Amino acid sequence: MDPMFLMNSLWVMVAAVLVILMLGGFILLEAGSTRMKNAGHIAGKTIFTFGIASLVFWAVGYGLIFGEGNALFGLTDFFYSGYEIEGLGLSGSVFFLFQLAFAGISLTIAFGGFAERAKLSAYIIFAVLFSIFVYPVIAHWIWGGGWLAEHGKQDFAGSTVVHLTGAMGALAATILLKPRIGKYNKDGSPNNIEGHNQVFTALGVLVLWVGWFGFNAGSTVAVDDAFFGFVALNTNLAAGAGAVAALLVAWAVTGKADVPTMLNGALAGLVAITASCAFVDTWAAVVIGLVAGIIVFYSMRFFEKRKIDDPIFALSVHGTPGIWGTLSTGLFATPELASVGQPGLFYGGGFTQLGVQAMGVAASGLYAFVVAFVLLAIMKKVLNGLRVTEEEEIIGLDLSEHGSYGYPELLQTSQPQQSASAQQSVTPGTSQGTVNS
Amino acid sequence: MDPMFLMNSLWVMVAAVLVILMLGGFILLEAGSTRMKNAGHIAGKTIFTFGIASLVFWAVGYGLIFGEGNALFGLTDFFYSGYEIEGLGLSGSVFFLFQLAFAGISLTIAFGGFAERAKLSAYIIFAVLFSIFVYPVIAHWIWGGGWLAEHGKQDFAGSTVVHLTGAMGALAATILLKPRIGKYNKDGSPNNIEGHNQVFTALGVLVLWVGWFGFNAGSTVAVDDAFFGFVALNTNLAAGAGAVAALLVAWAVTGKADVPTMLNGALAGLVAITASCAFVDTWAAVVIGLVAGIIVFYSMRFFEKRKIDDPIFALSVHGTPGIWGTLSTGLFATPELASVGQPGLFYGGGFTQLGVQAMGVAASGLYAFVVAFVLLAIMKKVLNGLRVTEEEEIIGLDLSEHGSYGYPELLQTSQPQQSASAQQSVTPGTSQGTVNS
Amino acid sequence: MDPMFLMNSLWVMVAAVLVILMLGGFILLEAGSTRMKNAGHIAGKTIFTFGIASLVFWAVGYGLIFGEGNALFGLTDFFYSGYEIEGLGLSGSVFFLFQLAFAGISLTIAFGGFAERAKLSAYIIFAVLFSIFVYPVIAHWIWGGGWLAEHGKQDFAGSTVVHLTGAMGALAATILLKPRIGKYNKDGSPNNIEGHNQVFTALGVLVLWVGWFGFNAGSTVAVDDAFFGFVALNTNLAAGAGAVAALLVAWAVTGKADVPTMLNGALAGLVAITASCAFVDTWAAVVIGLVAGIIVFYSMRFFEKRKIDDPIFALSVHGTPGIWGTLSTGLFATPELASVGQPGLFYGGGFTQLGVQAMGVAASGLYAFVVAFVLLAIMKKVLNGLRVTEEEEIIGLDLSEHGSYGYPELLQTSQPQQSASAQQSVTPGTSQGTVNS
Repeated sequence: MDPMFLMNSLWVMVAAVLVILMLGGFILLEAGSTRMKNAGHIAGKTIFTFGIASLVFWAVGYGLIFGEGNALFGLTDFFYSGYEIEGLGLSGSVFFLFQLAFAGISLTIAFGGFAERAKLSAYIIFAVLFSIFVYPVIAHWIWGGGWLAEHGKQDFAGSTVVHLTGAMGALAATILLKPRIGKYNKDGSPNNIEGHNQVFTALGVLVLWVGWFGFNAGSTVAVDDAFFGFVALNTNLAAGAGAVAALLVAWAVTGKADVPTMLNGALAGLVAITASCAFVDTWAAVVIGLVAGIIVFYSMRFFEKRKIDDPIFALSVHGTPGIWGTLSTGLFATPELASVGQPGLFYGGGFTQLGVQAMGVAASGLYAFVVAFVLLAIMKKVLNGLRVTEEEEIIGLDLSEHGSYGYPELLQTSQPQQSASAQQSVTPGTSQGTVNS
Repeated sequence: MDPMFLMNSLWVMVAAVLVILMLGGFILLEAGSTRMKNAGHIAGKTIFTFGIASLVFWAVGYGLIFGEGNALFGLTDFFYSGYEIEGLGLSGSVFFLFQLAFAGISLTIAFGGFAERAKLSAYIIFAVLFSIFVYPVIAHWIWGGGWLAEHGKQDFAGSTVVHLTGAMGALAATILLKPRIGKYNKDGSPNNIEGHNQVFTALGVLVLWVGWFGFNAGSTVAVDDAFFGFVALNTNLAAGAGAVAALLVAWAVTGKADVPTMLNGALAGLVAITASCAFVDTWAAVVIGLVAGIIVFYSMRFFEKRKIDDPIFALSVHGTPGIWGTLSTGLFATPELASVGQPGLFYGGGFTQLGVQAMGVAASGLYAFVVAFVLLAIMKKVLNGLRVTEEEEIIGLDLSEHGSYGYPELLQTSQPQQSASAQQSVTPGTSQGTVNS
Repeated sequence: MDPMFLMNSLWVMVAAVLVILMLGGFILLEAGSTRMKNAGHIAGKTIFTFGIASLVFWAVGYGLIFGEGNALFGLTDFFYSGYEIEGLGLSGSVFFLFQLAFAGISLTIAFGGFAERAKLSAYIIFAVLFSIFVYPVIAHWIWGGGWLAEHGKQDFAGSTVVHLTGAMGALAATILLKPRIGKYNKDGSPNNIEGHNQVFTALGVLVLWVGWFGFNAGSTVAVDDAFFGFVALNTNLAAGAGAVAALLVAWAVTGKADVPTMLNGALAGLVAITASCAFVDTWAAVVIGLVAGIIVFYSMRFFEKRKIDDPIFALSVHGTPGIWGTLSTGLFATPELASVGQPGLFYGGGFTQLGVQAMGVAASGLYAFVVAFVLLAIMKKVLNGLRVTEEEEIIGLDLSEHGSYGYPELLQTSQPQQSASAQQSVTPGTSQGTVNS
């Protein structure tokens, strides 16, 4: 057997495992960023929606993206058998699993917009529809030989395909679902609904950071010249730069070195470098990450002001940085590395590539938003509402959608009127007290 | 150096790391499925029992399985030196570590039956005995050239060897330990003792899912044709199908889309496909997973009704789906893929292979149960009981066995009579309240 | 492309990912070992300090270690471009990322000494200074062709370079920061300030254990003869032995099978075997791990008695076992495996290698401590103190340094005087009560 074939398969297999591990990062990030009463629900839904995404991708998703077809979608390879091992330079099953993982990640990002208020049935149905009508179409356009690929659109690992697409699904959902109870006051001023566990959030970001080495460096889908190492290096630099930039900008502007904002900065850096990680120099990766860290801070404020309640920051972490990352390729792509398209503006490539990137973002973003919005609007009719009742939302989706709390020993059913009083939480100072006891 | 040797070693090394990572999945799954007062104990014991399993496997376990011997056990290669690199087609040390991880997983599964009531000393002693007298014998029978291997028993990655064996150890323990205080009422009706953290449980399942790619796809112990990709694909499809099936059956039958049941469905799919992942078509993997997801739901009810208190569902997740998975190989194995044995019943292979599979399940299950039961019965005599006192059980094993709570700021020593009152937990509705404060 | 080059790059790429995953282990270990009021801070700082370490390593750290220079430090390869792929036998970018991860780990260990009382600004500034003036110098001395390398100092994966260096930074910090409020009583007797979540701690140890396969086995930086497998095997045996030894010694001496001590035993075994994993036989790995597990128990008591408040046990887990591991190479290194230096004392190599090891420990430890101490002393002046105010420390660093609690639903701002009363935590016995309700 050709050793290159085996090494390509081995590397992409490892990468696929890392991308699937990212779902663990999302479980932690989403649970940590939301409230205790919804924790079991939000952690659990990540598992079964990935199950749905896996089955749909096997049945039709893969074929819609990579099957023989036209400029808009593919039409073969449904119910993938996994037998073929020719043509790709690596095992077809490994390539399939790697792509399946990407589809699952994009869906998980979209569900960020559902958080803390959508019905269980809405998750199940949207998981099927998004995995057929939204993600595969855009993936075909850019990665499956579709019309944007023909125009030389560059999106190495999916700032547009995976992240922007997911974020547009989340945007459609947040608009149709409306803000959570308590998010906005009568005068329209926003409240900060804090997530319940920053250890989960921080660990989730680290797990995503680790998984991203599979996501980006694995997108080489080959070991040629061990180029995956360079891609991974750029990925790590952008993530670090994003975290540092977001921490400093938040501290400078608000006087508060907010942990969730800093964590979103790391993710924004990762999302931004996803498009360009294989095309730019290391210094550019640092710049792209720094800018992403600043963008995420202002993006979070922008959407909150616009009354768009995005509990897990899908729009500000995957949306705006996804756009920035896709466009940055048109600015920083070097002649040495720019494979498909033209060098970037800063390397004398002119506006050509930047224009193509912009068109790709606009077309993909628009398609994803419109189709997701229409699908959700129809679901809203059919399901008689996408959202749980006010009482269910207050009591929590763990209880209303699944029949039990994720933290049964810490939570209790009670009158929503009742307010959190001193008795209901630990007093920090007293952990010193316990020492002496 | 032969590149195939190096690639085989590299792939199995990665797989071994993934299997050892599964212990992290068990820490989360077991802690999440049990109560706060036992969380430090159950998380901690997973570490030192793996330590014991590692030392025993090095001293004797590996030799009992793979050493030169007879049809029942091996008798050489004790205190493994790790020097040999010939004969296996990969590094002997890598193969050793991969096998060591499997032994550790089987032991961890067996400890599921000990949860929330067994003495610390029982964990330590059983870890040694199980790792000598139970697991290695069955592993030798099926994987070490023992008598079941000679009969063509197929168990690709250990539905029987690892999962059923562990589950039988758990069954013996649950019977001898008796149900936890409060599990059954005087009239014999069961109570649902909820686990304390569904985020841990869900994350644990995701970590196990990820680790299973090493468990199953790594069991190729070679990179030939990159066949590991096909195995991984089947593994993922069965896991997804199991989660979806368990969610829907629980919802349909009980009206409650129970999160723990859905999570057990994913695990059941993984356990079931473990035997057959290399022998069946992708559509069969989906079917095997769907059936496993239904089996786990009814199995959980079955054992609970039978007064068998299995806190972490070792019997329903690793036992019944392990049997189903082993038998399903006799049904779905395709002529193209059936390596050792015959094609399955549905491919015209007749009942031959199914019969061999059934015999393997019966012989292995019986041996594991009887030996584990006898060992535990002797321990019960010697230790003057396997179980902590009633008072210790009520106060929790963190305090009774280890001297401190795993959550010292959330738990306190107090009268067991005292009941959980409103003051003792957060009121969900009020997390909205805090927003406005 | 040369398949050896590709396989070396692939293996070290996997190892680099595993080492970066260790940061997740530290997030869990440090958060679990400290109090709820500091959990968001301690988890979050691990992310942005790794960001800082990444940027500094890219700008100057790598060049100081591996650049052309003198016996004390290197002076080229700043602002690493990642283009070179020649000379190392693997991708330069992969090697860079692997080394970057080590620098990040050493810094994270040093921050153990800052826990629960240092200002946010102290973290940011020390992250920069340590990554320039401390870690790279010692790494150059031993791994970058510096003067200790010329003397044949053996430190395969960094018991000295990474662990002892980090521990010395922690020691300097603990001395300058003074003990936490409540750690010592007026009479000088110590109090045990318990960590808030042993599930986090245990899971953190498992994640570190898994990551250590990359840390140690990846330090082969090549796949020659698949020797990484032997290194990984020794690593696992020492970790297991350390956990078992620490559990038994704690139980025997104190009558309490303390979970955190047992977990530190596993880490001590890992730290100790780090220097010698490639040079000793498997039986020696077991012995080195067992001794490390005993050392960590007595080391924890030693430092606590000496009024050195080391919340995350950086000194006892990374310091003393790091020294033991480095010296043990001079005792157990076998003629077959001793690559650079001489066989150990027990193999007739005499005291030569032991002497070189001792010198390396002394020189490295002294340099790291003195420079870290001086840098921190200067910072203390400039920042007008390294430590938060008493009030801030009591209320917690989540609130004082970042403006919000990591567990907002479980914690509240209140008078530090107020003591934790029965109303403020769950009563274990009552989880039985909830069952019947």
